Amino acid sequence: MNSNSNINAYIETHKDRFLNELFDILRIPSVSADPKYKNDVIKTADAIKEKLIAAGADKVEVCPTAGYPIVYGEKIIDPKLPTVLVYGHYDVQPADPLELWTSGPFEPVIKKTDLHPQGAIFARGACDDKGQMYMHVKAFELMMQTGTLACNVKFMIEGEEEVGSTNLAIFVKQNKERLRADVILISDTGIIANDTPSICVGLRGLSYVEVEVTGPNRDLHSGLYGGAVANPINILCEMIAKMKDDKNHITIPGFYDDVEVLSAEERAEMAKAPFSLDAYKKALDLSDIHGEEGFTTNERNSIRPTLDVNGIWGGYTGEGAKTVIASKAYAKISMRLVPHQNSDKITELFKNYFESIAPKSVKVKVTPHHGGEPVVTPSTSPAYKAASMAMETTYGKKPVPVRSGGSIPIVAMFKSELGLDSVLMGFGLDSDAIHSPNEHYGVFNYFKGIETIPYFYKYFADLKK
Amino acid sequence: MNSNSNINAYIETHKDRFLNELFDILRIPSVSADPKYKNDVIKTADAIKEKLIAAGADKVEVCPTAGYPIVYGEKIIDPKLPTVLVYGHYDVQPADPLELWTSGPFEPVIKKTDLHPQGAIFARGACDDKGQMYMHVKAFELMMQTGTLACNVKFMIEGEEEVGSTNLAIFVKQNKERLRADVILISDTGIIANDTPSICVGLRGLSYVEVEVTGPNRDLHSGLYGGAVANPINILCEMIAKMKDDKNHITIPGFYDDVEVLSAEERAEMAKAPFSLDAYKKALDLSDIHGEEGFTTNERNSIRPTLDVNGIWGGYTGEGAKTVIASKAYAKISMRLVPHQNSDKITELFKNYFESIAPKSVKVKVTPHHGGEPVVTPSTSPAYKAASMAMETTYGKKPVPVRSGGSIPIVAMFKSELGLDSVLMGFGLDSDAIHSPNEHYGVFNYFKGIETIPYFYKYFADLKK
Repeated sequence: MNSNSNINAYIETHKDRFLNELFDILRIPSVSADPKYKNDVIKTADAIKEKLIAAGADKVEVCPTAGYPIVYGEKIIDPKLPTVLVYGHYDVQPADPLELWTSGPFEPVIKKTDLHPQGAIFARGACDDKGQMYMHVKAFELMMQTGTLACNVKFMIEGEEEVGSTNLAIFVKQNKERLRADVILISDTGIIANDTPSICVGLRGLSYVEVEVTGPNRDLHSGLYGGAVANPINILCEMIAKMKDDKNHITIPGFYDDVEVLSAEERAEMAKAPFSLDAYKKALDLSDIHGEEGFTTNERNSIRPTLDVNGIWGGYTGEGAKTVIASKAYAKISMRLVPHQNSDKITELFKNYFESIAPKSVKVKVTPHHGGEPVVTPSTSPAYKAASMAMETTYGKKPVPVRSGGSIPIVAMFKSELGLDSVLMGFGLDSDAIHSPNEHYGVFNYFKGIETIPYFYKYFADLKK
Repeated sequence: MNSNSNINAYIETHKDRFLNELFDILRIPSVSADPKYKNDVIKTADAIKEKLIAAGADKVEVCPTAGYPIVYGEKIIDPKLPTVLVYGHYDVQPADPLELWTSGPFEPVIKKTDLHPQGAIFARGACDDKGQMYMHVKAFELMMQTGTLACNVKFMIEGEEEVGSTNLAIFVKQNKERLRADVILISDTGIIANDTPSICVGLRGLSYVEVEVTGPNRDLHSGLYGGAVANPINILCEMIAKMKDDKNHITIPGFYDDVEVLSAEERAEMAKAPFSLDAYKKALDLSDIHGEEGFTTNERNSIRPTLDVNGIWGGYTGEGAKTVIASKAYAKISMRLVPHQNSDKITELFKNYFESIAPKSVKVKVTPHHGGEPVVTPSTSPAYKAASMAMETTYGKKPVPVRSGGSIPIVAMFKSELGLDSVLMGFGLDSDAIHSPNEHYGVFNYFKGIETIPYFYKYFADLKK
């Protein structure tokens, strides 16, 4: 089977090509949220198809959906062997604000950083998720070329993860037979540090809404009307402020009803993960942290739900001063959810509350965007063990099971539709600036992923024997 | 002297030209707040210069300042006669949001409206202030051509009114001799209705600031960080919400200290002005009005100070959903001030309060934009009487003295620098949508202004004899 030396030898030989191929994919601006990139998103799907074929996959297909297509491919070497279903996504977040990028978001370059002394690939999608997804394509090539593929493999790479994976659930429902597998393997999360591997065993869910507050039916002169009509921006601010109390608890009635309460033991276990609050504050240039009273920073961003305004706009935002009372104000608001909370229910609670606190002097509209359910994955399964052993082999250290604050809503859907657990073996760092300007992904992390994945197949096949 | 018939005959003969000349000026997008219109603003100054020369003014000059120039011109017919200093501005507000205009903001057209059955000129600046300013140029032409000019006249037309008239004060200080006059005449306000003339005797002042709230030093993924760091948008909303209490009183300590308190008699007098709350709500499509407890709508927008957010922005504002915690959030906030409040003092109080309520988890920056002092003009002076008699002549009804909620900061400056009162004889309607999409100015109002102004000169000369 695989040995450290032949894996590393193959990687070493093809290192430059592995990077160049990823760069080619990173150059295509596959922003799924913005219709103007439609052709590029589709072009990316086609590129992934070609790469899967080249790596040795069979039945490769760009499967159309009502939205962006899903790229499918497989290699069944022996029906008696276990099957690994690899999920990833080829779409990326919008790149703005563009002016904060130090190099073009779709012009990948390698630059050194404090945490990536060997260099990191700077580009939108470098880490989330093109870089991490492509590790699986290259690890597959490696196993095919070295004759070491230990399991059957199926790939399902979608193009709508960043906009809610709306069409993936339909595809999954319609392709249950084709997607039959023993486990789902996903690299779309991170590790604690390059010398501290970890595996994600919990993800938060998501409710995402857009709100619109309308005051007068047209923009007004703030001198002639100021003080006498509801200013929708002031009102929106007041409504958002009312969503949290002075302890930063969310005030939506019923919001916490279903929240999973961790035991003191579980919280004590979590608190053992290496973490420096000083380093955290320093990295983000924060004078002080901020969050729900009674919880630590790591609890606030993993086991506790949140409410964050992701965008707000209204009135005059250009240069200089304009004395206007806007007719409308808008905000995009998301809530991260924890186990046992339900996305649809929380969206409904939000909507009811938001409408209930609106003064009669304005009209409000709440439009739900995508949502997703929170999830906890088992850390006792053969698949988890295989991932743990694989990381221990390549990092020389047993990975820590951790809960992440992010959301991969489809993990809960895979469980309910396919009955499959997912293993969230990601290789990014929290500091990789995914969803931000200057997103990057360590060259070390990219190759460490390609190195680790074949061990997962090997150990998983062994454990399933 | 003037007679109704020869004024009206001259207007009738030159009606089309009077409109066409105004249209030419409205076609130049002289947006002083936006540097990209710089050449157009300067072009407008040159156009005004040409029009003043053509109308018969002497010593016409485009006077440079550190910003946009001031157009000066004069006609001294007899040093013993009183001198009227006409002030106006040739710059306009930004036109956005462009998509709400039913015709191009710089493509003037005449369209009928409910309140303007004879048609109104739709264009940015049609009412504020190109249309109203140009009435004075055409009334001057009329008086010159009909040999009826009864006073000396000086014109001072500036290009920075919409951005705070920063350089006008310097110009005034440096040109006290040149600007010597008996009264300042300004048409940059409105009347109650086309059958209810009024003269503005009070204006609110203005403090205008821009605020910036910084949380983390870069945009963050709201899943990985949400709940654990200060979200600058949420914080900004909370800070804005804290600026008013549940009675819509402004909470800035000391804000109301200097506010002029009107007597019950004065308020009762104000309440006599014709006003329909139902019509007001209907015109703005409001289910309910909104404002400071204890005051009527007309009091709220004239004798009471305000705090309005004129613009807010931060985070992702594009299509779809982006799960980001922004690094920064911004707002433009203005306060309208009433007599005895001081703009610099209020700006300082705002700044101190805003900084004091910022949690330690964010950094805040307050940048003052322009300000201006509130003003009350006498309604017993010869100049006021001349304006009142002029309007009574042309409308057949004595105008009501009213206080306006808007600000013309330079009125207070004229008083302190030149020792001159201003007469605010404007002809617009509140519904003319100045500072909004579809700004317009009644054709009736334009010609009524040109008709009324010569009577002002006549009566003012008579009263000063």
